[in-house]
Amino acid sequence: MFFASDNWAGVHPRIAGNLTRHSAGFASAYGSSDLDRQVEQTFSEIFEREVAVFFVATGTAANSLSMAAVARPGGVAFCHREAHMIADEGGAPEYLTGGGRLCPVDGPLGRMDPAALEHEIGRYPPEFVHSGQPAAISITQTTEIGTVYQLADIAAVSQVARKHGLPLHMDGARFANGLVALDTSPAEMTWKQGVDIVSFGGTKNGCWCAEAVVFMDPKKAQAFPFIRKRAAQLFSKSRFIAAQFEAYFEDGLWLETARHANAMAARLADHIRASSKTRLGWEPQANEVFPIMPLSVVEVLKAQGAAFYPWHPPHGFAGEIGEDETLCRFVTSFATSADEVDRLGDLIA
Amino acid sequence: MFFASDNWAGVHPRIAGNLTRHSAGFASAYGSSDLDRQVEQTFSEIFEREVAVFFVATGTAANSLSMAAVARPGGVAFCHREAHMIADEGGAPEYLTGGGRLCPVDGPLGRMDPAALEHEIGRYPPEFVHSGQPAAISITQTTEIGTVYQLADIAAVSQVARKHGLPLHMDGARFANGLVALDTSPAEMTWKQGVDIVSFGGTKNGCWCAEAVVFMDPKKAQAFPFIRKRAAQLFSKSRFIAAQFEAYFEDGLWLETARHANAMAARLADHIRASSKTRLGWEPQANEVFPIMPLSVVEVLKAQGAAFYPWHPPHGFAGEIGEDETLCRFVTSFATSADEVDRLGDLIA
Amino acid sequence: MFFASDNWAGVHPRIAGNLTRHSAGFASAYGSSDLDRQVEQTFSEIFEREVAVFFVATGTAANSLSMAAVARPGGVAFCHREAHMIADEGGAPEYLTGGGRLCPVDGPLGRMDPAALEHEIGRYPPEFVHSGQPAAISITQTTEIGTVYQLADIAAVSQVARKHGLPLHMDGARFANGLVALDTSPAEMTWKQGVDIVSFGGTKNGCWCAEAVVFMDPKKAQAFPFIRKRAAQLFSKSRFIAAQFEAYFEDGLWLETARHANAMAARLADHIRASSKTRLGWEPQANEVFPIMPLSVVEVLKAQGAAFYPWHPPHGFAGEIGEDETLCRFVTSFATSADEVDRLGDLIA
Amino acid sequence: MFFASDNWAGVHPRIAGNLTRHSAGFASAYGSSDLDRQVEQTFSEIFEREVAVFFVATGTAANSLSMAAVARPGGVAFCHREAHMIADEGGAPEYLTGGGRLCPVDGPLGRMDPAALEHEIGRYPPEFVHSGQPAAISITQTTEIGTVYQLADIAAVSQVARKHGLPLHMDGARFANGLVALDTSPAEMTWKQGVDIVSFGGTKNGCWCAEAVVFMDPKKAQAFPFIRKRAAQLFSKSRFIAAQFEAYFEDGLWLETARHANAMAARLADHIRASSKTRLGWEPQANEVFPIMPLSVVEVLKAQGAAFYPWHPPHGFAGEIGEDETLCRFVTSFATSADEVDRLGDLIA
Repeated sequence: MFFASDNWAGVHPRIAGNLTRHSAGFASAYGSSDLDRQVEQTFSEIFEREVAVFFVATGTAANSLSMAAVARPGGVAFCHREAHMIADEGGAPEYLTGGGRLCPVDGPLGRMDPAALEHEIGRYPPEFVHSGQPAAISITQTTEIGTVYQLADIAAVSQVARKHGLPLHMDGARFANGLVALDTSPAEMTWKQGVDIVSFGGTKNGCWCAEAVVFMDPKKAQAFPFIRKRAAQLFSKSRFIAAQFEAYFEDGLWLETARHANAMAARLADHIRASSKTRLGWEPQANEVFPIMPLSVVEVLKAQGAAFYPWHPPHGFAGEIGEDETLCRFVTSFATSADEVDRLGDLIA
Repeated sequence: MFFASDNWAGVHPRIAGNLTRHSAGFASAYGSSDLDRQVEQTFSEIFEREVAVFFVATGTAANSLSMAAVARPGGVAFCHREAHMIADEGGAPEYLTGGGRLCPVDGPLGRMDPAALEHEIGRYPPEFVHSGQPAAISITQTTEIGTVYQLADIAAVSQVARKHGLPLHMDGARFANGLVALDTSPAEMTWKQGVDIVSFGGTKNGCWCAEAVVFMDPKKAQAFPFIRKRAAQLFSKSRFIAAQFEAYFEDGLWLETARHANAMAARLADHIRASSKTRLGWEPQANEVFPIMPLSVVEVLKAQGAAFYPWHPPHGFAGEIGEDETLCRFVTSFATSADEVDRLGDLIA
Repeated sequence: MFFASDNWAGVHPRIAGNLTRHSAGFASAYGSSDLDRQVEQTFSEIFEREVAVFFVATGTAANSLSMAAVARPGGVAFCHREAHMIADEGGAPEYLTGGGRLCPVDGPLGRMDPAALEHEIGRYPPEFVHSGQPAAISITQTTEIGTVYQLADIAAVSQVARKHGLPLHMDGARFANGLVALDTSPAEMTWKQGVDIVSFGGTKNGCWCAEAVVFMDPKKAQAFPFIRKRAAQLFSKSRFIAAQFEAYFEDGLWLETARHANAMAARLADHIRASSKTRLGWEPQANEVFPIMPLSVVEVLKAQGAAFYPWHPPHGFAGEIGEDETLCRFVTSFATSADEVDRLGDLIA
Repeated sequence: MFFASDNWAGVHPRIAGNLTRHSAGFASAYGSSDLDRQVEQTFSEIFEREVAVFFVATGTAANSLSMAAVARPGGVAFCHREAHMIADEGGAPEYLTGGGRLCPVDGPLGRMDPAALEHEIGRYPPEFVHSGQPAAISITQTTEIGTVYQLADIAAVSQVARKHGLPLHMDGARFANGLVALDTSPAEMTWKQGVDIVSFGGTKNGCWCAEAVVFMDPKKAQAFPFIRKRAAQLFSKSRFIAAQFEAYFEDGLWLETARHANAMAARLADHIRASSKTRLGWEPQANEVFPIMPLSVVEVLKAQGAAFYPWHPPHGFAGEIGEDETLCRFVTSFATSADEVDRLGDLIA
């Protein structure tokens, strides 16, 4: 019963198989192989436009280098108060932008509130050197607490970005989970709403290490080969990242694994709702479930070997958590089985 | 006939197999899994002392973060004029140290000359803020031009390092090739000669992505978990790096693949020597061969699909290269076959 | 009627005179002159212990390089939400620490609340690389809104710093104004309460450019000469900073000018209180006064040529500001005259 | 007999006087005062075009921030092997560009050789991420060894810059000395030869602290206000830098002081030539003289209290220095008197 994180899962058999299939032979290094080129082409097909794709080692690298690509002197990137960039990247965005700042923005259920965003941007008046200057806006889809920006939500943030002439970045560590939750297309979820750069994650959804920075406009990516190399993020045997993405996209595997993960989360949510002892902190929309549970249940689950984390109530959380209760996070993945979920459900009930 | 670089090779079957074997199941992330711990232990056994091991994504990252670990304000690292850090890392060491400098040091055949090293360090007198201050010395084993520091050579550099109170780093992107060339032990080639930090590379010797920073003294590594995370180099599914190293070390696979690569280079050198048209720029000592060849031969080889690069004559090169000749680099790897070498040999003869 | 800022003032005649007095002749450069040494000695006398003193060009430099001196990878400095470092330094602390973060801490009337500080530090659990790590705590004395930390307030923050093993920095851009407000000694206001590093400002109190980083423990300053030089903050003709400080300290000039500025603020506050149209946002404690005034009064003042700024209500401000009112800031300095204050008072009344 | 450096001198009386004259009264801060604006206008007149001017604290800051203004990821600036940026700025250019590299270029008598420059640029092929990329070229006028680039020399370097699309920077710490040596105009010595950015120094020529970054094309300076603020180089009482420059330029004072310094150097050179014991290392062209002297003479001079430094023979120095001889540097300034020079001359003779 592994619900600690979707990065505790392994590698999908079809992806592992493709790695093995490509393991023999020779190919040119540093992203110049045929397979690299072909997978880049696949990205363009998926996004329904010519995009520029750069593989990097981690989601933190994808986010941080996206920020580096749009950095300005004294620059400030605006993201949700609980965004991964702020809470979980060990200062990498600040470091890799050469000292940029991340400005936390409020918003309920993990999503930036456009009005709060406007308010924070307002702290950095144009041309006022003392405050520094806005440089970027970043949203996380799926959010850190398993909620999803609706297309209109993205458009609303995008409107603020456009008004202030700021690039809009999407941290898509769980891109696929959000995509299938919305039942929309990558194009719709990104550039059609005004997203400029995407951190496109495959690791949490069945790859072992497959992250990419995707520029919707390749012209904006001209400096990025140097930015990536300078950050020591250019793989020599890059084609093995490409090999993962090749299998990931083939026959829609990535959508299938994301749908499975989301379905497992929904199944778990049903168990939470069904139990008289537990309740949902909020409705899950993708592959994360945040129940409020009595400490006694937590202890039972731990004793039975279930892996999951307690969680801080997010900004704007209006629910009540009793003294003998706690909020927890359960994450499902391509590798989560219905059996496993039901066993957990039985323990909760 | 792929001799462009050892990073054009794929993945050794036993390493690919081990990746697949570990692909199922769940394990804790970010380097905390049992497999991660176990492979760290293997490193300690191999180095015959307790070492601290940190996986990173690329050799450039290993080098740059090693430098970051010992950085000083206004700090200068001394390395050979042709070192990978200077010539091929896109400014990553400077960037990831927050602006450190790399000082090129002369020396014949790819190895720093201790007297030249002393001379360069002398440009940075103690306590003289205007020049900046020495921060580290780095040697490359195997060097960029396929030569090897003898143990006494390492000790001589180390003596300079100790005299000035500087940490000694070894860029071991081709650690195994140098090791088997010297027929010595990792302990002898490193800390017993005074090496403090090693960039330990597996990628060029059969892994697809397996690089590690190894601190000979774990106490010196206390800040490194933060340094690595801040540089976006902490893999979530770290255990798949561990899985590569597990297979790499098992039953001495790494030494076997390195010996094979070196043997293929020696075989190629024999062909070069045997041909009346070509000669060696210098004696190869590991898995790289640098012949001087007539342009006509180069054209034939290219026409037959051989992949290799022309090369700049290294510092201190005393040979002569005619107007219709060129110096070239041929790199062998675990994946190079004797057949392939002989086919090339036939074309040269 | 210049109340926009104390940095709109010029140079005190005794300081200007001393600059002129020292303008002839020759002296060794970069801080090594007799005058430099002598003024350093004066600092030690004033602080009643041997301190290490480093002149820099601006208060922003003093703060940022103080932070650089204690930086850690993924490091976070904690300061009040409205601290100059966060609000007015254009990202210099983040930049000059190589990407450090400033964490805003709440607290009423411009002073950090120790409990809020504890809470924020708690977001960065020890050894947890994902969040980054605490690196420093910084307080501002006098605060940005003209209030003063009492000695016990400083001690309370210091206790948190000690508990977490963090250095405590004081942004003393208005050090003298706070000092005379408390009627205490520099030693009492700093190291006796646990302050480790002070940004010691003279510019706002009668110098034209005289800022220093003062380390209470010279052993902690060993890397700082390189840190300052690397940041391009080492003056060649450093003795002219020393000359300013020489006059600044002579016969207690600095305390006299600070007392005058504070007295002018108190006199202005009396006018505010006396008028039926205006009231104080909070009690001024040093040389800044924040009245709430009708817009009509603001317009009259502006029309009469008074220079001052509107101000955002600070964190925790409990007062009420009507729709036709606004909060404003008036800053007094050594150069403010009683006449000027009374003329302003007449306009307000 | 102070010949150690022109920054050992004090402040010219007319500049000190102007500081005092402006010391009273109030003016808006951070470079927005009338005096600031007026002096900016004077710069435009002097350069015969509209330029953008930014005061900073030190020559090192002017150089480093010039480099920051044109930085690229993995960027490399090319300057003479003995340039101040490389030899005497404590790593500031590397640090303040976020990790840029300085590439030393050879050239006799302190001036970059255009062919050597081309050769070094050639190490960084376009679009080749592994090497990094060229970002800027910087020349020093007057050079570190007292020689001067003729206009045609500047044009030759400029041609290389244009060919590679690189901005051309001039480190003008001794701008005035070079200018009067060439008997030309600022426009001729800079933008008319293709110079884009100038570090314009006043400190060594009679100011106490007056350095500026001057952009020949203000459009290229749009980000610079943020770059300067972020580097903690924006003075609050900026008008006192302006006051120095006001007096500096008034009635051609700056040219007068530079001519005087150069004349004193020529006078000293005459003494060197006249003595049978000493000879010139090379012909001085501005305000620095490099004699080769017997150690016995050096001892006599030191014993008589003369301040000067021994010096390393520069790159390409073809002269001979005997075992009992040494190369020395003597620097003259606005404050050097003919008497002082002659006294030194008497001791040499």
